Parts: sequence; structure tokens; C-alpha cells
Amino acid sequence: MSEMMKRIVLASRPTGAPSDENFRLETGPVPAPAEGEILVRVTAMSLDPYMRGRMDDAKSYAQPVPVGGTMEGGSVGQVIASNSPHFKLGDWTFGMFGWATHSVQNAKLCRKLDPSQVPVNTALGVLGMPGFTGWFGLMEYGKPKAGETLVVAAATGPVGSMVGQVAKSMGLRVIGIAGGAEKCRMAVEEFGFDACLDHRAHADAKELRAALQEACPKGVDIYFENVAGKVLEAVMPLMNVGGRIPVCGMISWYNEGGLGMNAGGAKDQLPKMWRTILVNRLHVHGFIISDHWARFPEFLGTVAPMVADGRVKYVEDIAEGLEAAPQAFMGMLLGKNRGKQIVKIAD
Amino acid sequence: MSEMMKRIVLASRPTGAPSDENFRLETGPVPAPAEGEILVRVTAMSLDPYMRGRMDDAKSYAQPVPVGGTMEGGSVGQVIASNSPHFKLGDWTFGMFGWATHSVQNAKLCRKLDPSQVPVNTALGVLGMPGFTGWFGLMEYGKPKAGETLVVAAATGPVGSMVGQVAKSMGLRVIGIAGGAEKCRMAVEEFGFDACLDHRAHADAKELRAALQEACPKGVDIYFENVAGKVLEAVMPLMNVGGRIPVCGMISWYNEGGLGMNAGGAKDQLPKMWRTILVNRLHVHGFIISDHWARFPEFLGTVAPMVADGRVKYVEDIAEGLEAAPQAFMGMLLGKNRGKQIVKIAD
Repeated sequence: MSEMMKRIVLASRPTGAPSDENFRLETGPVPAPAEGEILVRVTAMSLDPYMRGRMDDAKSYAQPVPVGGTMEGGSVGQVIASNSPHFKLGDWTFGMFGWATHSVQNAKLCRKLDPSQVPVNTALGVLGMPGFTGWFGLMEYGKPKAGETLVVAAATGPVGSMVGQVAKSMGLRVIGIAGGAEKCRMAVEEFGFDACLDHRAHADAKELRAALQEACPKGVDIYFENVAGKVLEAVMPLMNVGGRIPVCGMISWYNEGGLGMNAGGAKDQLPKMWRTILVNRLHVHGFIISDHWARFPEFLGTVAPMVADGRVKYVEDIAEGLEAAPQAFMGMLLGKNRGKQIVKIAD
Repeated sequence: MSEMMKRIVLASRPTGAPSDENFRLETGPVPAPAEGEILVRVTAMSLDPYMRGRMDDAKSYAQPVPVGGTMEGGSVGQVIASNSPHFKLGDWTFGMFGWATHSVQNAKLCRKLDPSQVPVNTALGVLGMPGFTGWFGLMEYGKPKAGETLVVAAATGPVGSMVGQVAKSMGLRVIGIAGGAEKCRMAVEEFGFDACLDHRAHADAKELRAALQEACPKGVDIYFENVAGKVLEAVMPLMNVGGRIPVCGMISWYNEGGLGMNAGGAKDQLPKMWRTILVNRLHVHGFIISDHWARFPEFLGTVAPMVADGRVKYVEDIAEGLEAAPQAFMGMLLGKNRGKQIVKIAD
């Protein structure tokens, strides 16, 4: 009996937090590559917060996944059939292979990986899109200077841990925010943050702010925004004049119906924040990392050696099997993962 | 009988919109200049929205006016006594002389004016702080490019009319927003805007947005923010990818208790806006013009010739006498002025 392809499709659009019924496992024949394409047997796939946005049909920077379509995502795997001169059987590659055990792709859209340098799974996290997001946003929009103070939430995730480690290597004071004592310990002991606050230990933005203020006696020069919500509200009044806020995500609002309905707290939040942007002369930059792939080689050239020799550390949280992806994804949106969330698809 | 000095002091802090009782006229002897100082007889003073902020004691970029202190402001006048080698009797000067008929000032903090080039009152508006604010914010943070679309509110004010005229001269499509049909006519016929929308003719942000959408068929690349409130809410969803938002003020919120309490409308405004900043990769820059005086000579060198030969136009609304200042100021906050609001103090 020949090998079958399994994939997870979007069964229905979620209202608020996704649940099991929004996903459906489908099985079918393994597709064959056309001219210029390769067939990849996926070994590991990435789970990332942006995927929540793809489940809504709200206007965004990318097309939504159609109902019945395969969930999108980046994966690594081995070429098992090739109609492209660029790949031979057994080559390792990264591509947007979706939540699936196999994928055929235009070879030009796939990146070849060299497993002799660093483990191929690093292409999903520390040396992939999340790590690049942290590095690029910090360097391009954060404009870090030695002696400044940086705050980043989701501190042990692949974006936050990159931001914190690169900033530390440049001489900044780095304060993380994470959910739970274990993650806070990890941020300090494994990733070298100066301190890490447990947002779950602080009932509201005001309490979190008081703790942050203590941890940031000279105020905050860079707030790397990837969570929004309570953390944003806590940090804003602490921003120093001329502060920078790179904005790459807002995971705390992703589950609130896409547009963050009812997530904004008090009615006066927008005027308060807009006023802080003016009074403290802040620079707020939204960015979508897919606009900036031209800088990816610079990122790899800088950070891959730091990963290879251990100056930049990473932690992976690995779920077993494609079928485990929906649960792992839902858990990640709630912050249950410990480090970069990966799903192992095959050996 | 010798000449007396009149000044208007902050009698009490306003709650919401200022009223007569917040101001008090005081009369006293004309002060004498110490070493290095000059005594100025003020001829005209400027009224600007930022003064509303000085009446609150909320933390801001400048110290609040103390209760009982002279209201702050920039004025022009003639030197009538000088203890400085830099000024002689009869010289014209601009300085922060406050809401007063006379002022002694450190001569180094006063700018000498040449009445043979342009009328001295231009130092209060088109060639002063407001004009510089519009020019600097547009050039530094708006980064205008020919063919793009710019939106600016308070279009006939000294900031908005500068932004619009400079942007037009660089080949942008310029859409103004103003209060009332007469101001809209002025923006188009006198200042050369492509179109100007009357925000009073649109009941809410949604209606205003529909009208803006029609006037901006290619979306909005630059929103020069000086009013916030309904206009901000209307413009945000129309911003193009990579759009820029220089933020120099938010006059529509200044009367709402400083922090804009209850001015934010729905609870979901902040998440919606934050999401737009991310999805459309916007660049939002708060700025306070007093940080940037080093660029003032560049501004004057560029724009003064355009004012002198009529390429940049300006309109002044002149109230008569220091006693008229509070009413004129309160009117300006409500948009009752027509062009730059000036108070004539003496001939």
C-alpha cells in the first residue's frame, strides 16, 4: 500500500479562541511534482501566532485560509521527488508546506538547508521567520543603544528570546515579561535577561506597571510589541522621550474576534495612548516580516554563527504528530508552550 | 502717569473646556531689564492650541503654568529698553513674552526680526512655530513623495495650511478637513487644496470616512495628525501600506480633561488602531517642535522666500486688545477662528 498524505484543513472560522471543531484531518494520495516542482516529506512544522489571523476572513496583510483549505505554515522536510535541477533526493528544505505530511512546491520558493551547520529545525524558529522578526524589528525600528532599557513580552518565545539576547549582546538592560514563574526563570537563566516579570502574578495593567517601573528605574527606551493588551497598557506610561515601539504582533488580542472587540478595556485608552505618543515623542512602527526578506541573508550571516557557538540560545517545545497540531496551536495562543512550538511530523 | 503693564494670569485650572473664570487680568508697573535683558513692548501675540495643555497640571513635555502665573505664549514687539548689546531701541523681536503688554527677557532668548522682508506678525504663524511645525513634521516624518495622497485636518489653520501648501508644491494630492463650508472653500480657493471636507457635515467618523474615501481614491499615504478624535477614527482604515502619521497635536481631545477622558468612543478603538498600525505597516511619530529648533534656519531659508513671493499663503484672524485674548483662545479651541489666531496688543 502506498504512502498517504495527511493534512489539517480549516473546517470553520473560529469566533474568539479556536477550538477542535475548527480543524479537520483529511487523508488523500500523495501528490506528484510537476515541472520545476519538488515533493517534500515534512519532518517538522512550525506553529506561529500569525496563523490565528489567517483563520479569520478580516482584511489583513495576507489572504485568509479558505474554509476547507489546508492550514498555512512553514515546515522543514526532505525532498523525496524532484522535477527541479536545484534539488536532489534527500536534500533538506524549508518552505510553506502547510499543516501536512507532504507538499509539492515550486522549487524556487523553497530554501535549501545544510544540516551540517545547525539542526534543520532551527529554520523554524531561531534562524527562521520568528528569529528574523525579532532581529529585524529590533535593529531596524528599535535602534538599540548600549545603556538603554528594552522591554519585550513573550520573552521565552522565539521572537522575544531573540530580541532579548541580541539587545543584551549590545549592552542594553533587558526586561522580559512572560506567563508563569518557570518561563521567567528561563528568560533570566537560559536567555540572560536582566529580569523577567510574570504577568500572571499581576492582576491588572496597573500592578504590572508598578513592577515594571521597579525593574526599569531609568524608564523604557524600546518596547518590542508582540502581545499588546495588558502589557501594552502597562508599558506605555513608562516610555522615555524618544522611545521606539516596533510592532510585529498582538497575540493577546488575536483571540478576541480578530478585531479585538471588547479587548480594549476603558474607553479612554486610545486618547491616553495617542497622547503618550505625542508627549513622549514616540516612534511606532508596524512591520510585517515578509516585506523584508531581502535582509534575511544579513540576519543569517550575523546570527547563525551566534547560534552555532551558543551565544544565542533557543528552546523548542515539540508536539508529536500532525494530529497534535491543533491542540498545540491552541495551547500556544494561551502561552502554554515552553519556547518555540514545533510539531514533529516524521523522523 | 507712567505706562502700566497688563497681563493675563491663570486664575484657576479648567475642567474640560476653559471658561472666563480661568483667566484674570492684572495690572502692575512695567518691569525694568537687568543686565543682558531687554524690555519689549508687545504689539501682537499668538494663540495656539498647545496653551490648553499648559493650563492642566498633568505631566507633559513642558511645565504647566502655575495658578496665578502669566499665561505662556509667543509674541512680537519692539524693544523699548535694552541692557544687551544685541538689541537697540526700536528693534523688532519675537520671544516668549506671555499674555502681556510688556515683557523683560534674556536677550539671548529673543529672535530679532527684519520688518523689511516680511510683516513681523508672520513670526507668529506662517514663519513661526506653527508653520515650522507643519513643514518639519511633513518633511521629517511624512516623507512626502509626488503622486501620494495626504490628509490634514484644521486645514486652514497655520499648521494645516502649511502642510497642505508644501505638500501640493511637491506634487501630492492634498485633502483637507475643516469645520464649516467657509473654511473648506478657503482651503481649496486660497490654499490650493485639491478638496476639503466639512467634518461638521458628517455626523460621525463612519460618514466622514465614506466622504474621505471618495476624495482619496488611492487611499491615504500621509495623515498629518493635529486634531485626533473623529478625524483620526475616520482616516485610520484608509491608510495605505507603509503610510506615515506625524503627530503634533490632538486639539479635539484637549478640552476633555487633558487626558481625553470619555473621548475615545468605543472600547475597541485602541485594538483596532493598533491592528491597523501592524497590518498596514504604519509609521507613527510623535514630535514636539521645540526639540527641533536646530532645523529652524533651514525652514526659514526654504519657506520665507515662498511666503515673500506668494507661493505660500497665510490668513490671519486678529482679535483686538489683550483683554480679548481669553475669548479668542476659547473660540480657537472650538475652531471659530479663520486662519492664524493673533491678538493685537498695540500699534
